[in-house]
Amino acid sequence: MRYAVLGTGMVGQALARKLRALGHEVAMGARAPDNEKAAGFAAETGGLAMDFAAAAGFGDMVINATSGAHALDALHQAGAENLTGKVLVDISNPLDFSVKPPVLSVVNTDSLGETVQRAFPGSRVVKTLCTVNANVMVDPARLPGEHVIFLSGDDADAKAQTRAMLEAFGWRQIIDLGGIDSARAQEMMLPMWLRVWGALGTLDFNWVLTRRPDQDPANR
Amino acid sequence: MRYAVLGTGMVGQALARKLRALGHEVAMGARAPDNEKAAGFAAETGGLAMDFAAAAGFGDMVINATSGAHALDALHQAGAENLTGKVLVDISNPLDFSVKPPVLSVVNTDSLGETVQRAFPGSRVVKTLCTVNANVMVDPARLPGEHVIFLSGDDADAKAQTRAMLEAFGWRQIIDLGGIDSARAQEMMLPMWLRVWGALGTLDFNWVLTRRPDQDPANR
Repeated sequence: MRYAVLGTGMVGQALARKLRALGHEVAMGARAPDNEKAAGFAAETGGLAMDFAAAAGFGDMVINATSGAHALDALHQAGAENLTGKVLVDISNPLDFSVKPPVLSVVNTDSLGETVQRAFPGSRVVKTLCTVNANVMVDPARLPGEHVIFLSGDDADAKAQTRAMLEAFGWRQIIDLGGIDSARAQEMMLPMWLRVWGALGTLDFNWVLTRRPDQDPANR
Repeated sequence: MRYAVLGTGMVGQALARKLRALGHEVAMGARAPDNEKAAGFAAETGGLAMDFAAAAGFGDMVINATSGAHALDALHQAGAENLTGKVLVDISNPLDFSVKPPVLSVVNTDSLGETVQRAFPGSRVVKTLCTVNANVMVDPARLPGEHVIFLSGDDADAKAQTRAMLEAFGWRQIIDLGGIDSARAQEMMLPMWLRVWGALGTLDFNWVLTRRPDQDPANR
C-alpha cells in the first residue's frame, strides 16, 4: 500500500515514519516541494518528499496530518482529482489556540471531518486518531491497558482499511462511532484532552472504556 | 449536612436517595410543591418534598439535577436569595434532543456551568457528574476499574466539599480540571457519551485514564 501523509509537523512525522517502519511506500506532502522537514523524513527513512498534489497523487490512501487551521487549504492544494475514490484519513484538529482556553473553530452542529467530506465528496473520509498525542497514535503500547481510538465515516470499506492501519500500529480497542457526523464527538473531546493535559502535566495519556461486566464485548 | 436536590427525574431521584442512604437530611425540590415524584421520594425515604425555593432555602448544599433546558428557569424559581453563599453543584446537561444527532445548546466558548455561575454570582458553582449515567453517578463501584469523574469551579472550598460528597458516593479518581470555564470540557464529552451509548448499547460505562507508567500519579 502506498501512503501519502500530508503535513510535516509532529503528527505527520510520527505517522510517516511509522508507516515506513511497517514497510510501506510513503510520500510526505508539503506546501513547497523542497520543504526541509519532508526532505529530512525522506533522507532518514528512504521515503519520498513531494508537494501536496504529487503526494496525494502518489498515495493509494491519503492521510491529512496538517493542522486544523490549514487542513482545507492543504487539501485543495492536494487537489480533488488526486483524492477522488481514495480513503482520506482526517486526523486534523480544529483547535484555535489564539484564544484562551482554546476553542474549536467548527463544532457541535458540524465538524472538520464533515467539512472535509463535503469539500471532497469523491473521497471517502474517515476521522480517527485526533483524540491522542502523536506518540500515542503510532505506539499505543506505550500506555498500559486496552485504551481506545475511534472511527467515524460514511464508507464501510474506508473504515475497514483505516482499521487495518490502526491495528498495524497496535490498536486493539477501535470503536466505530458511526457516520462522518460522529466526527463531532471525536473533535469535541479536544477541550477535555487539553484540560487533562493541564491537570496531569503530560500528553502521554488516553482513555480505557470500562463497563458493567455483564455487558457484551465492545462492538468492533 | 442538609442537601437540596432540585429535580425529580432519574438523576434527581438517584442523588436524593443516595444522600438519604448516607444519612443526610435531603429535600427534593420540584416546580410544584405537590409533585408526585417528590412526594414518592419523601414517603419512601423519610426525606422531604418541597418546591424549588423552599428546598434551596433548606439545603446547605444545593444540587441542580434538572434537565439542561430547564436549569436556569428552575434556579430562578429557587431564587438567588436561597443560593447565595452556598455550594451549587450543577449536574445538568445542555443537550438538545430535538435535533438528530442531539446538539449542545451552549458550547465551546461558553457552558451551562458558566451560565449558571454568571446568573447566580453569589453562589459557588461546581460542575460535576454530567459525564456519566445516573446509576454510575451514585454507585461508581458498579463498573470495574478506577474510572474518572471531573470537577470544575472557581471556588476551592466548594470543590473540596463536592469532592467529599463524591468520595462518599465511592468515587476515587476525581480530576480537578480547573475553573468553572472548564465545565466546557465536561459538557463537550456528551456527544461522545451519546455515540458510545449507541455503539455499545448500554449507558453503564465510563472512562479510566491510562498514562505512561513513569508519570506522576493523578493530581488530586
